[in-house]
Amino acid sequence: MAKSKPSGRKTVARNAIAAPSTARALRSASVASARPDAKQPASPAAKSGASLHPGSLLSVTQLTLQDVNQILALAADLEIQPVQPRAQRLLKRRVSLLFYESSTRTRTSFELAAKSLGADTVLVSALSSSIEKGESLKDTGLTLRALGAECIILRHPSSGAPYLLAQATQLPILNAGDGIHEHPSQALLDLRTILTRRLGAKHARSVTAQTLAGMTVTIVGDIFHSRVARSNALLLPMLGARVVFCGPEPLLPEAAAAIGPGITIERNLDRALAQSDVVMMLRIQKERLAGLKLDLEEYTTRYQLDAARLATHAPKALVLHPGPIIRGMEITSEVADGAQSAIEEQVHHGVAIRMALLARALETPATSANKTKITAKPVKKNTK
Amino acid sequence: MAKSKPSGRKTVARNAIAAPSTARALRSASVASARPDAKQPASPAAKSGASLHPGSLLSVTQLTLQDVNQILALAADLEIQPVQPRAQRLLKRRVSLLFYESSTRTRTSFELAAKSLGADTVLVSALSSSIEKGESLKDTGLTLRALGAECIILRHPSSGAPYLLAQATQLPILNAGDGIHEHPSQALLDLRTILTRRLGAKHARSVTAQTLAGMTVTIVGDIFHSRVARSNALLLPMLGARVVFCGPEPLLPEAAAAIGPGITIERNLDRALAQSDVVMMLRIQKERLAGLKLDLEEYTTRYQLDAARLATHAPKALVLHPGPIIRGMEITSEVADGAQSAIEEQVHHGVAIRMALLARALETPATSANKTKITAKPVKKNTK
Amino acid sequence: MAKSKPSGRKTVARNAIAAPSTARALRSASVASARPDAKQPASPAAKSGASLHPGSLLSVTQLTLQDVNQILALAADLEIQPVQPRAQRLLKRRVSLLFYESSTRTRTSFELAAKSLGADTVLVSALSSSIEKGESLKDTGLTLRALGAECIILRHPSSGAPYLLAQATQLPILNAGDGIHEHPSQALLDLRTILTRRLGAKHARSVTAQTLAGMTVTIVGDIFHSRVARSNALLLPMLGARVVFCGPEPLLPEAAAAIGPGITIERNLDRALAQSDVVMMLRIQKERLAGLKLDLEEYTTRYQLDAARLATHAPKALVLHPGPIIRGMEITSEVADGAQSAIEEQVHHGVAIRMALLARALETPATSANKTKITAKPVKKNTK
Repeated sequence: MAKSKPSGRKTVARNAIAAPSTARALRSASVASARPDAKQPASPAAKSGASLHPGSLLSVTQLTLQDVNQILALAADLEIQPVQPRAQRLLKRRVSLLFYESSTRTRTSFELAAKSLGADTVLVSALSSSIEKGESLKDTGLTLRALGAECIILRHPSSGAPYLLAQATQLPILNAGDGIHEHPSQALLDLRTILTRRLGAKHARSVTAQTLAGMTVTIVGDIFHSRVARSNALLLPMLGARVVFCGPEPLLPEAAAAIGPGITIERNLDRALAQSDVVMMLRIQKERLAGLKLDLEEYTTRYQLDAARLATHAPKALVLHPGPIIRGMEITSEVADGAQSAIEEQVHHGVAIRMALLARALETPATSANKTKITAKPVKKNTK
Repeated sequence: MAKSKPSGRKTVARNAIAAPSTARALRSASVASARPDAKQPASPAAKSGASLHPGSLLSVTQLTLQDVNQILALAADLEIQPVQPRAQRLLKRRVSLLFYESSTRTRTSFELAAKSLGADTVLVSALSSSIEKGESLKDTGLTLRALGAECIILRHPSSGAPYLLAQATQLPILNAGDGIHEHPSQALLDLRTILTRRLGAKHARSVTAQTLAGMTVTIVGDIFHSRVARSNALLLPMLGARVVFCGPEPLLPEAAAAIGPGITIERNLDRALAQSDVVMMLRIQKERLAGLKLDLEEYTTRYQLDAARLATHAPKALVLHPGPIIRGMEITSEVADGAQSAIEEQVHHGVAIRMALLARALETPATSANKTKITAKPVKKNTK
Repeated sequence: MAKSKPSGRKTVARNAIAAPSTARALRSASVASARPDAKQPASPAAKSGASLHPGSLLSVTQLTLQDVNQILALAADLEIQPVQPRAQRLLKRRVSLLFYESSTRTRTSFELAAKSLGADTVLVSALSSSIEKGESLKDTGLTLRALGAECIILRHPSSGAPYLLAQATQLPILNAGDGIHEHPSQALLDLRTILTRRLGAKHARSVTAQTLAGMTVTIVGDIFHSRVARSNALLLPMLGARVVFCGPEPLLPEAAAAIGPGITIERNLDRALAQSDVVMMLRIQKERLAGLKLDLEEYTTRYQLDAARLATHAPKALVLHPGPIIRGMEITSEVADGAQSAIEEQVHHGVAIRMALLARALETPATSANKTKITAKPVKKNTK
């Protein structure tokens, strides 16, 4: 197994984020201006409490190793807590799910996590919202806050949208996927899956900068457009893992290695597998390949994970996929359902991680900068 | 401040409703026949219990000053009640939200209010319902009742639809907006916002026919199509307020002043502002202006509320808007976010008002005329 | 009243299901291969626990008379249980509603039933799911299981889809309607309605193979495409009822009588009514008539149930309809709202039946064959 030096990992991961151009993802220009410069990590601001609620999770870059430990330990505790006391933890607290893109698994996972802790949830989706009436994200957020929402879970097609919402509302915001930027809860559940399967459940509640030292995680597919790849590539090296990106040039520009240190690019899947302890397959969208003039058949020949390839090159590697999987496209049924696959376990760990993130969001006190301004103060009568 | 005589206010507000022609709003002809004649106020029937459940709120015209007091006091009590005992109040009672139009803020507000009181909610929206299969409003209502719904919250594009539903089901119905007719819970939350901001929280729980005497509330924009304008114009004068409508002729026909006494029309926004203690801006829809051949630029020049205009003509007026706001259209960002704005507070007060309306709906006993007919009585075997 | 011999009823109903060709209903080819052969009843497999969770209800053919009794008794008990202890029964258990077709009444009925027992529900509908991303039913089911769903309620356009889901997940699956195959909870609620109205509430909790002996139930309309007709025709004869199908040839092929013994075809509605204790009208879809080149006017002349026809030929028959009804099409308003109609009672009984089915699903232990495979077992580090 190839080793990478763990030194300087954390610092770099948090300071040297060279984002791939997010221009293409910024479908909604209105959000762009509020997006923090991708070269300027959000964490310092978030940490200092200068403006964002400290219970927010907008990017894995805002997490310290101590934060990751706290989340993993809380997830482990909540997962085994009996159902009824657990349902008291956030009893009748109000959590809003604001989904500008549909997503069964992420939405349902957060919703079940919130309900498990006793919270009341309200779903606002693009289909049923005022969005079509032209209301801005900011105003929708302010409205949800005024309705009593104490935490907003946001899925949005524009990178950076959660920052705008966090700034506008000063509420704890959980980023459930923003454009091609980040999907931090996914990276945390992937981490929990890797820890549990490779090291055992007891290692899944406490980690150090060395925990994944010597381990190589290969991410295969459309890296460029993947918030999952990005969040994982930023999180896993904090624990010592080496990350390999694998895919053809149009989906994986050379510049992607600059997301963080310890990231290498290997365009040949077989060679990538040969060095992998974990291989994470990403969903391939036909339309996207067509748009890039990539031939689907050639792509699957080169990058599909099938049983023969896996047995030959990585017979012991753990197989992950953030879903939804398209059988016969990026992965075969045999691999998806095989003993090396942890795809369902990922979903399972997601609920525990999201319970932890919700408890953290609602139990972390606001800083003085986050005080909401809705107070019912009387104003003297107009005495014109 | 211009004064208006309070005498006769209540009587007139409840008896002399000259509705603007609702013909345009009656998109669904099937409802039209069941709609009570707009010249015949619904309140007497509702009051007498002749046919509608007394816990219903279909129109502000059915409310006496005593009813308004009861609702305001209940809202104030429920708002400050601790979360857990409050959640016992309507524990497991069944509330159905029947939304033929989408509406984030109204739907979410009612839903959170119901959940805060412990009720189970079920949402039936046009997108997911049998509506597309041709089922009538009456049959959908009867089905919801048979499913166990004890109260239905209805949003419908046809004026009068809630009357039809109330007659068909004999359940308490809460009108969450019907065509261009009424939006009574909005008017009540606007009232609570005005009382709280202008007179202080303690005045927001008990009112008289004089409470708003000497106060002028100006409503600006598309009055003709606004159920919010109509409900406010019918409610506020009951407490002594004077109402001014402001807008261009196509959106505000002269006949609108006949909705109630104490309503005047002022087409010049600056002159209207100069006499206002409260200014309520309505949303402008581009499509509607275009349909009426109104020039958008000319409209905003004449009717947009911007900071300069507000500072010059109404530096102390409270600014309201039922939302969703379109920044830069009827209102500028500076005004919407400014110190005079109570837009978020309106949303906040909405949840308390709707908790009160739900408690009232479910705790007001049915009259003998409202008994439901679903009983499981045996019928003798067919003995042909 | 025409009598039919009760002997052999149960055996036949469970073994001789000659389904009408389901080819037309198999809109989703991906499901077809997993659908059990229609000539091979599912019950033996389900009963033996070879592969499906015994708490499932996929088809009425899997029910013994003892099962039907258990469900009816549980429904009766749950219906009268006080609200608060009832809400402890499935407290915080996780029930997922997976609806590939929209259905207000069935979805809402199951949702309210689940909430009444204290369960947490999550709705995944075609509009908001990963379905549009090409995810298979199998993978959606596995994801829901991994999210913690303990029971899935499935509505699907393809006959047999619930079998596939039950096999893939090994969870208890409740079939809420699959293509033209079955709608078992509807047949059970129809049964409860008939028992209550014809024999009295106390007979609605305990039945024998003779309970409906001597009773004739006529089902009128588009039998061929009706899962409701099919489930009723399989269930009611178990209790001794005789079933008459009535409709024109294109909607009711001669082969339909082979669904079970004790089924006869009578194409003349008046003659069918004359022998009926219960008449169940099915919804007519204009598009379907047009597709079959049936003339709508001629159809309603021959098959619409109106007051005159009912008074002349079946003045004491109970009138049922699974809804949604189209007034003036298959049934007139006078009949739908008349004293013989039990249409709303059907909806009402549906909630009790579905509470019983949910309690049964979640309280029936899995067999050893149903153990889920999601366990968090550590795997040794890759030691390449």
